[in-house]
Amino acid sequence: MMGIGVSPGIAIGKAFVLKEIPTNSPKQSYFNYQEENQRLEKCLSTVRLQLENIRAKAEAKLGDKAQILDAQILITQDEELLTFVRGKLKEGLSAEAAVHDGVEFYAELLASMDNDYMRERAADIRDVGQRMIRHLLGVEQSDLAHLPESYIIVAHDLTPSDTATMDQERVLGFVTEIGGRTSHTAIMARTLEIPAVVGMVDGTSIIKTGDLVVFDGESGELVLNPSEETLMVYSAKQKKERESRARLQALKEQPSMTQDGRQVLIAANIGTPKDCEGALKHGAEGVGLFRTEFLYLNRDTLPSEDEQFQAYKAALEEMAPNSVIIRTLDVGGDKEIPYLGLGKESNPFLGYRAIRVCLRQTEIFKTQLRALLRASVYGKLGIMYPMISSLDEVRQANAILADTKAELATEGIAVSPDVEVGIMIEIPSAALISDILAKEVDFFSIGTNDLIQYTTAVDRLNENIASLYTPYHPGVLRLVQKVIENGHNSGIWVGMCGEAAGETALIPLLLGMGLDEFSMSAISVLEARELIGKLNYAEIQAWVPEVLAIGTAEGIKEALRLKSIRG
Amino acid sequence: MMGIGVSPGIAIGKAFVLKEIPTNSPKQSYFNYQEENQRLEKCLSTVRLQLENIRAKAEAKLGDKAQILDAQILITQDEELLTFVRGKLKEGLSAEAAVHDGVEFYAELLASMDNDYMRERAADIRDVGQRMIRHLLGVEQSDLAHLPESYIIVAHDLTPSDTATMDQERVLGFVTEIGGRTSHTAIMARTLEIPAVVGMVDGTSIIKTGDLVVFDGESGELVLNPSEETLMVYSAKQKKERESRARLQALKEQPSMTQDGRQVLIAANIGTPKDCEGALKHGAEGVGLFRTEFLYLNRDTLPSEDEQFQAYKAALEEMAPNSVIIRTLDVGGDKEIPYLGLGKESNPFLGYRAIRVCLRQTEIFKTQLRALLRASVYGKLGIMYPMISSLDEVRQANAILADTKAELATEGIAVSPDVEVGIMIEIPSAALISDILAKEVDFFSIGTNDLIQYTTAVDRLNENIASLYTPYHPGVLRLVQKVIENGHNSGIWVGMCGEAAGETALIPLLLGMGLDEFSMSAISVLEARELIGKLNYAEIQAWVPEVLAIGTAEGIKEALRLKSIRG
Repeated sequence: MMGIGVSPGIAIGKAFVLKEIPTNSPKQSYFNYQEENQRLEKCLSTVRLQLENIRAKAEAKLGDKAQILDAQILITQDEELLTFVRGKLKEGLSAEAAVHDGVEFYAELLASMDNDYMRERAADIRDVGQRMIRHLLGVEQSDLAHLPESYIIVAHDLTPSDTATMDQERVLGFVTEIGGRTSHTAIMARTLEIPAVVGMVDGTSIIKTGDLVVFDGESGELVLNPSEETLMVYSAKQKKERESRARLQALKEQPSMTQDGRQVLIAANIGTPKDCEGALKHGAEGVGLFRTEFLYLNRDTLPSEDEQFQAYKAALEEMAPNSVIIRTLDVGGDKEIPYLGLGKESNPFLGYRAIRVCLRQTEIFKTQLRALLRASVYGKLGIMYPMISSLDEVRQANAILADTKAELATEGIAVSPDVEVGIMIEIPSAALISDILAKEVDFFSIGTNDLIQYTTAVDRLNENIASLYTPYHPGVLRLVQKVIENGHNSGIWVGMCGEAAGETALIPLLLGMGLDEFSMSAISVLEARELIGKLNYAEIQAWVPEVLAIGTAEGIKEALRLKSIRG
Repeated sequence: MMGIGVSPGIAIGKAFVLKEIPTNSPKQSYFNYQEENQRLEKCLSTVRLQLENIRAKAEAKLGDKAQILDAQILITQDEELLTFVRGKLKEGLSAEAAVHDGVEFYAELLASMDNDYMRERAADIRDVGQRMIRHLLGVEQSDLAHLPESYIIVAHDLTPSDTATMDQERVLGFVTEIGGRTSHTAIMARTLEIPAVVGMVDGTSIIKTGDLVVFDGESGELVLNPSEETLMVYSAKQKKERESRARLQALKEQPSMTQDGRQVLIAANIGTPKDCEGALKHGAEGVGLFRTEFLYLNRDTLPSEDEQFQAYKAALEEMAPNSVIIRTLDVGGDKEIPYLGLGKESNPFLGYRAIRVCLRQTEIFKTQLRALLRASVYGKLGIMYPMISSLDEVRQANAILADTKAELATEGIAVSPDVEVGIMIEIPSAALISDILAKEVDFFSIGTNDLIQYTTAVDRLNENIASLYTPYHPGVLRLVQKVIENGHNSGIWVGMCGEAAGETALIPLLLGMGLDEFSMSAISVLEARELIGKLNYAEIQAWVPEVLAIGTAEGIKEALRLKSIRG
C-alpha cells in the first residue's frame, strides 16, 4: 500500500485502529428546545474544560504546537458558530444534530477556500465537533492516553487532541487516511519525531487492530502483515537508521570541520522562539534565519514593540552564546497580512514586499528595530534585511537603524555594541553588486529560494514549471560563488539560509566555494556536520572551477554525484 | 489648459470645432414597425457601403490602422446587436431610438470592462451608432474631407471615420475631450505624425471655431488665443522642431557611425508586417525585433502555417536586403491567448510562457518554424527564441528547428541557407551563462524590459514599485556588459531590443560596452543615429569601467549626464 510519507523513519509494529464514531445528523424531529439548549451549554463548558486540561498537559510535550489547542478552545466560544447552532435548536433539532450541522457548515466553508492553512483549520472545527457530539452521545473517547502496549496508530485522521493526550512512548508510528504535508498529523509527527504516512486510502477498513504493519515514513510505502523476508528488510533498514541516529547524536557537541581543518558554522532556520529547543537538540551552532512573520500573521493588528521584544529576547537567551540572525519583516509575495492593506498584485513575488514595505511604512520597521535592539543585550544578535535589491535600500535601512539606536540611547535603553547587520542576497541585482554592498554590512546570507526564482524567472510555487526550478542551474551557482568571493574580498562572512544550504549533494560545492555558514532545517544539521567532517576542503576547492564550467543543471548534478563517489 | 500629450509636435493654428449631434433617445411612442424596420435596413446597408468606401480610401493613408474600419463594418453586421435593435423596434421605438439604445447598451458593457482594449472598442460602436443616427435623421456629416483652410481639429472625440476621410494636408493637430494613449485619436495621430492632445476637458465648449490655438503634443499644454509673447515661444519651438526633423531626415540613408568609425546597426521593433513601412521611413537598418503575437491574439484559433508564412514573407520582402529578426511566440506573462488554455497563474511573469510553452506544445512551435523557414528565401531572416533560461532550452529549440528543416527538405521546399538563429537574453540565468550559450547561436538580443524586472525582482507593470524599475541599476548594466563581452568572445554579435536601446542617455554607455545592434521604436531611430554620429567610441570605452563601478542607479544617471555635457 502507498501513502504519502510525511515524517521519516521506519515503523514496525502492531496496528491500533481508531474507528470514527458516525456523527451523521440525526433525523429532524421536534425536541424540547429548553432541554436541548441546556444539554448544549453543559456540553460546551465540559468540552472547553477538557480542552484546557489537554492543553496544559500538552504544553510540555508539544511546544508551540499546543497553540492548535488554543484555536480549538476558541472554537467552543465562537459567537458566529454558536449563534448558528442555537438557531438550529430553535428550528427543533437535537443538540447533536445542531452541532453537527453548524460544524459542517463552517468546516465546508473553510475547506472550500483556496488556501492550505484555511483548509487545515476545517479539521480543527471538525475535531471540536466530534468531541462535542461524542460527549452529547455519551460515547467513550477512544483513548490513546492509556495504550496497553506499543502500537502503530491507524486512523481516518488524527486530531490535535488525539496527539496531545496520547502516550508517546507507546506510539511507533501514525497512518492516516487523509491529510497532506501541512496536516496536523504530519506536523505533529515531525515535531514528535514519530514516523508517519498520510493519505493511506481506506486504511482503517483494510487494516485491523492487531495486524502487523511495517512502513517507511519517507517513501510512504506500507506493507500489511509482511512476509518474513519483507520484515527482515524493514528491520535492517530500521537498525541502520537507529545506528545512524546514534552516530549523528555523537556529533552534537562537535565543531563542523573538514578533514583538513576548515571550520564552518551550521545553524538552523526557525519560525518561532520555541523552535530554538529543536535547533539545540539537533546540534545547531546558532540560528541563521529567524523568520519574524509569525508575530504578524493570523491576527488583526500589528504586534506591539513589547510583544516582539519578548519573542526576540526568548530566542537570544535560549541560543546564547551562539548567535541568532533575525530577519526583519518579510511580508508580501506568498505571505499576506490583510490588515496592512497591501492590495492584490498581478505578480506578488515581483511586488511590494519585505524591505520595500518597511522602507515606506517606516513605523512598522522602527517598531521592529526597537524591539530587536532592546533584545540585543540578552544574547548575540544579527539583524538581517530581506529582499534587498539596491545600495539605496541598504543605506536607507541602516539610516533608520541608526536613528532608532540614537532614540534608544536618548531614552537610556541599553543596546549591545556587538549587533551584526546583514542582508539577504536573494535578488540577482544584489548579488551582481555584492562587491559594493559588502562595504555596508557585516554579513551576507544567500537566500536561494528566491534567488533561484528570480535568476531563472521561475515561480517556485508554480507546479507547471517546477522542473525548471533548480539550485543546480549553473547561472545560480556562479552567482552564489561571486557573492561569496565579493563578501570575502571585503572581509565579511557569507552564509546561506535557503533550502539549498541543507541539500546534501550541494554542500560539498558550497563548502568549496568558501561558504562560511550553512543555515538549514534543524533536523538536517547533524547530517550536514557528518558530511562536512568527511570532506577535504583543499581538494574540493581545486575542482570547483571545473564544475562551474558545466553548462546544465543535470550536468552539474551528475558531476557532483561522481565527485561524491570518488571523494 | 492641460490635456494629455499623446503625439509629439507643436501645433499652431485656427481651431475647427466639431460639434456633436445630440443623439439622445427620442421619446418612446408607437411607430409603424414595418416602416421603421425598412428604414433601419436601408440605413444599415447605406452605412455599410459608406464605411467600405472610406476603408478603401483609408487603406493607403492609414496602413494597417485601417483595420479599425473593418471592425466597424463588422458592427453593422453584428447579429447580437441587430437582434437587440430589432427587438426595440418591436417594442414600438423609432429606428433612431432603437439604434441609440442598442449602441449604448453594448458600448456601456464594453466600457465597463477592466481592459483598455475593450473600453476603446466602445468608441467604435458609438461611432457606427452616430453615423447611423445621422443618416436616419438626414443630418449632414461634419466634413473633414473638404476643409477650406488649415485647422487644428477640436472634437469631443475623433472617430476612425473622421480621421480616415479627413484632408490630412489641412490638419495641423487634434484636440479631443476624451481618450488616452491607446484611444483611436492617439493612435491615428501618431501614425499620421500629427501633434495631438487628448483629455482636454470641455474643449469643445471653451474653444470656438476660428480661435487661435497653440499646443504642445508632448507636454499636453494648450494655450487659447495666446499673447504675442507666447505665440513667439511656440513658433520658436516649432521652428526648432522642424529644423531638427529636417536634419534627422538627412541621416535617413546614412550609416550609424561614431566619429572614430565604429559602425553599429540601428533597427526597429515592429508588431506587424505593415510596420515595416514606418521602419523604413524612419531610416531603420532592418528589424531587430518582430513580435509575432499579433498573429495569435484577438482570435479563437491558432493561425495557420500559411497565414504566418504570408506575414513573415511580407516583412522580409519589404525590408530586404536588410535583415528581419523574428521572435517566436512569446505568449504568457501579460499576454493571454485564451484558446491555448494556459490557465491562471499566481505570478504569470515567472510562469509558463514563451519558449516554455513552445517546447512543450511543440506543434504550435513547429508550425511557426515551418512558416519562418519557408519565408526565409524572401529576404534576410533571423529567428529568435524568447525567455531562454538554460542551455537545455536552446538545444531543444535548435533540435526542433533542425527537424523542421529536414522535414521541409524532404518535401522539397526551399529554405535559405543563411538564416541566423539567436536568443533573447532577458532572464538573469541566461545572461550568467552567456559564455556557454554563445556557442549555440548566431546572435544575442538583450531584452531589457524583462531582464530588468527579473534582475531587480520588480514587476514592470506594478505602479506601486515603479521607482525601483530602472535600466540604470548597476547590477543590470554589469549583466549587459558581461553578455556583450561573452558574445564577442565567441565571435557572435550582440544586440538589444528592449526599451533601453532607444534611451538617449543610455546609448553612449551601451555603445561603449560594444553593443553591435540597437533595436528601438521606429520614431527613435534617426535621433539615435544622430547621437551616435557625435560620439567617439574609443573615448567612451575608456570611461565605461568607471561608470560601472558606481553603486546606484541615480549615481550612474548623473555620471552619464555629466559625460554627455563634457563629451
